[in-house]
Amino acid sequence: MRQPHDAASGAAQRILVFRLEVPIRWGDMDAMGHVNNTVYFRYMEQARLSWFDAMGWPYDPNGTGALIINASCTFLRQLEYPGTVLVHHFVGELGRSSFQTFVELRRTDEPDTLYAEGAARCVWVDFQRRKSVPMPEHVRQAVVTPRI
Amino acid sequence: MRQPHDAASGAAQRILVFRLEVPIRWGDMDAMGHVNNTVYFRYMEQARLSWFDAMGWPYDPNGTGALIINASCTFLRQLEYPGTVLVHHFVGELGRSSFQTFVELRRTDEPDTLYAEGAARCVWVDFQRRKSVPMPEHVRQAVVTPRI
Amino acid sequence: MRQPHDAASGAAQRILVFRLEVPIRWGDMDAMGHVNNTVYFRYMEQARLSWFDAMGWPYDPNGTGALIINASCTFLRQLEYPGTVLVHHFVGELGRSSFQTFVELRRTDEPDTLYAEGAARCVWVDFQRRKSVPMPEHVRQAVVTPRI
Amino acid sequence: MRQPHDAASGAAQRILVFRLEVPIRWGDMDAMGHVNNTVYFRYMEQARLSWFDAMGWPYDPNGTGALIINASCTFLRQLEYPGTVLVHHFVGELGRSSFQTFVELRRTDEPDTLYAEGAARCVWVDFQRRKSVPMPEHVRQAVVTPRI
Repeated sequence: MRQPHDAASGAAQRILVFRLEVPIRWGDMDAMGHVNNTVYFRYMEQARLSWFDAMGWPYDPNGTGALIINASCTFLRQLEYPGTVLVHHFVGELGRSSFQTFVELRRTDEPDTLYAEGAARCVWVDFQRRKSVPMPEHVRQAVVTPRI
Repeated sequence: MRQPHDAASGAAQRILVFRLEVPIRWGDMDAMGHVNNTVYFRYMEQARLSWFDAMGWPYDPNGTGALIINASCTFLRQLEYPGTVLVHHFVGELGRSSFQTFVELRRTDEPDTLYAEGAARCVWVDFQRRKSVPMPEHVRQAVVTPRI
Repeated sequence: MRQPHDAASGAAQRILVFRLEVPIRWGDMDAMGHVNNTVYFRYMEQARLSWFDAMGWPYDPNGTGALIINASCTFLRQLEYPGTVLVHHFVGELGRSSFQTFVELRRTDEPDTLYAEGAARCVWVDFQRRKSVPMPEHVRQAVVTPRI
Repeated sequence: MRQPHDAASGAAQRILVFRLEVPIRWGDMDAMGHVNNTVYFRYMEQARLSWFDAMGWPYDPNGTGALIINASCTFLRQLEYPGTVLVHHFVGELGRSSFQTFVELRRTDEPDTLYAEGAARCVWVDFQRRKSVPMPEHVRQAVVTPRI
């Protein structure tokens, strides 16, 4: 099926910026015996935050930083415990105060099989004022620099 | 911002089929002091499954039933504990073996303010064979019948 | 089997101080098709924090408040979705800077059947200094006052 | 403070049988900015199930296997993201159809500091009949054999 992000951004514009392995926990599965849908978003979140860490962006409630304003995922195959998820994290088009991200989820023991594709739009915000602000130049540079 | 589902289905086609109140748990919040993004998908899941229950669809691993193949959410406002989430569940366009769903999240103490909008495509599957199958007529009827 | 708290406090000393209903979410279940063990502790946490709310104790990172330093639970029967958990919250023996709590988990549709019994010791702390401090007299009064 | 398991079993009887590293996820933290109490039990669960895997005990709903009937944890220090939890898993006294387990949680970057101590009693059950059954001799041997 068509993925939500296909309309907004072609694959050619994506820059692979980060990669993370996340061990599946048994408790990530639900009563159907597969990793629960909401946990795919947790894997995406963890990859995003590890990437933020790699860029030296600790969460500072009194400063500025990135928040997501939407998230989507297409579930192509069912992940199951045991195993390790391999997340590839991409950056797409940059706006004035936001940038698009994409992720691909695979299993480390099956690196050629795509399990899920996701997307999330990150906005640069002033946490105290709860408002988006323009991304400083060093942030614009940082998000398109591969760290893998 | 534009939502992923806007391209696929206009608001005019949506039928409100179900409504659910979900009390926010303190543990739904993350280290930023708001309900975590992944938990918005949990609220959507709970509304969907309660609606399935209302239609008399218990999960039967040896039978047929609905699974989601994608999910998306636009986070408009930050939900915080304490409070109760009010989920409105809509059905959009029906295909041969799938149907589109939409949800709107609000707080019961602020019923006119939209906190998040989500969408998920449900596919009718044979759980054993892990394959989509055409929706029987009674299912096609059931999913467009309001139960509120 | 013998419960961890039996040695420390007899049933006679317990004061029922709070009661809470927590709807079971489908996602609370794990791959064995029952509510996951860790979620019993989440129900206990929610009852404790709702009780704190009822006493007018919002979490204030710059002030004082209660934290748990241990937790235990005996799983007597398996909770399953759908249903609502009824939590009874008790206070046991008070120390200088801490108090013992107990919980009992039942289903609202089966109020005479005990599903689980838990316990946790709450300590009164100065959050900034991360140290226990003596409970003020109004706190000592508050924790033994039933609010049901 | 005194730990729940101290009464039942002295440290001398414990056999270290398994060790597991569990990366902390950002989402493991709650609104107080620490790993949530319920997640300590998740780390214990993961260590237990990885140990079961190491013994060749996949979960078989039609067969026999181990379930926990209680769990306890003493929270000594607050775990925080980022980091990796190092879990040591011990076996204590064996009964006819059950065995005692203990865990110790540390951080891999601070291996000499104990963060939490937990315990859980495992019972050997026939999953279909939901009844405890005597542990076969090969199980009694397996649980006291270190796999590290």
